[in-house]
Amino acid sequence: METSGATRLDDPAYKAAVVDLLGVLAYGELTACIRMATDSDLAPSVRIKAQMAGFATTEYRHYEMLVARLEAIGADAEAAMQPFVSPFSAFHDRTRPKSWIEGLVKAYVGDGIAKDFYREMASFVDDETKAVMDLALDDEGAGDFIVGVVRDTMKTDRTAQGRLSLWGRRLLGEALSQGQSVAVERDALAGLLVGGEADLSEIGNMFGRIQERHSQRMARLGLSA
Amino acid sequence: METSGATRLDDPAYKAAVVDLLGVLAYGELTACIRMATDSDLAPSVRIKAQMAGFATTEYRHYEMLVARLEAIGADAEAAMQPFVSPFSAFHDRTRPKSWIEGLVKAYVGDGIAKDFYREMASFVDDETKAVMDLALDDEGAGDFIVGVVRDTMKTDRTAQGRLSLWGRRLLGEALSQGQSVAVERDALAGLLVGGEADLSEIGNMFGRIQERHSQRMARLGLSA
Repeated sequence: METSGATRLDDPAYKAAVVDLLGVLAYGELTACIRMATDSDLAPSVRIKAQMAGFATTEYRHYEMLVARLEAIGADAEAAMQPFVSPFSAFHDRTRPKSWIEGLVKAYVGDGIAKDFYREMASFVDDETKAVMDLALDDEGAGDFIVGVVRDTMKTDRTAQGRLSLWGRRLLGEALSQGQSVAVERDALAGLLVGGEADLSEIGNMFGRIQERHSQRMARLGLSA
Repeated sequence: METSGATRLDDPAYKAAVVDLLGVLAYGELTACIRMATDSDLAPSVRIKAQMAGFATTEYRHYEMLVARLEAIGADAEAAMQPFVSPFSAFHDRTRPKSWIEGLVKAYVGDGIAKDFYREMASFVDDETKAVMDLALDDEGAGDFIVGVVRDTMKTDRTAQGRLSLWGRRLLGEALSQGQSVAVERDALAGLLVGGEADLSEIGNMFGRIQERHSQRMARLGLSA
């Protein structure tokens, strides 16, 4: 619940930015849920299929939390997500996995980049919004599971390492280019970053950190960034 | 928890039947979850997409309950599901929806037939197993939602009624033929029915009831059975 006193959410520019941020994150979780469940269908065993469907369920739970926060601040959740339908659809069309293992790498690497960005943004928002975002950004073991499965796969498939490294680099490129076009179009969101404590060199640093963490994820998978 | 005294589960033939029944139902829920999430991707609005992904999540929760019951009676859940991977995969290959609305009709009509069959079987099992099955068989509003969406769609798409009626009849045929081939292969499962209180005429009645309920579902959708 918001306090009855004046809050940052009374500032329309700030509120629009938070609605955008929660909206993009909510729609991201919803599509991540659907992608994970879809890709699980091609998993080679019932165990992996069930695990992947379970992670999809976790993403849906996160989606529900974000929708609840949007409603708590008086926003229409569906309207908040709408601007991000096309960008996500474009990203997914351009990065359609050709196998379940590419799907898993995409879930880890692609969602990882997006989540790093949301984590950076979370430092500019009010505490209650940040608390919901932090919960929604917890992967609850999915990353560890994916790292294990991808490393196991590369033990028996010698061509996988090169192919998946290339795939990871393509995911970085597509994610950054899609992210940038969203930022350009969504003034409020960009304003949160630029109008806040961040100056241009900090934005540069942020992108540096995101790329750094991408390289760490690739290394954990045993892939070259 | 089982009591420490002698229970029906000490009878190996009965236990094998229950493991089969919980295994087929668990794998059915897992694949239903994956199908619903996959089909939701083509939904025409964020609202319907989110609803469908939510129903997928419910199905996953049911799957988890059934796995917990399998483990409680000392069965290996993955092994229990394994015999049903191919039959389900064959059924889904033969009934691949060409649109999200066909996917919804399949979820209501196809899963409805399967669930009627499981409900019939539930009357032959011990109370604790039956309680878990009853929970897992509750659709938690998915049916009402699907009926509403299908009826709305038919208002604006005049060719939908004929096409979806045909689709519903095909689903009945494929479900019965796949169900029969599972029953023939799984002796324990068939034994539960035939060795139990059911004689042959009762089995005939059961199929009559399943077909009757199928017709009721088709009528609710506004389709001809």
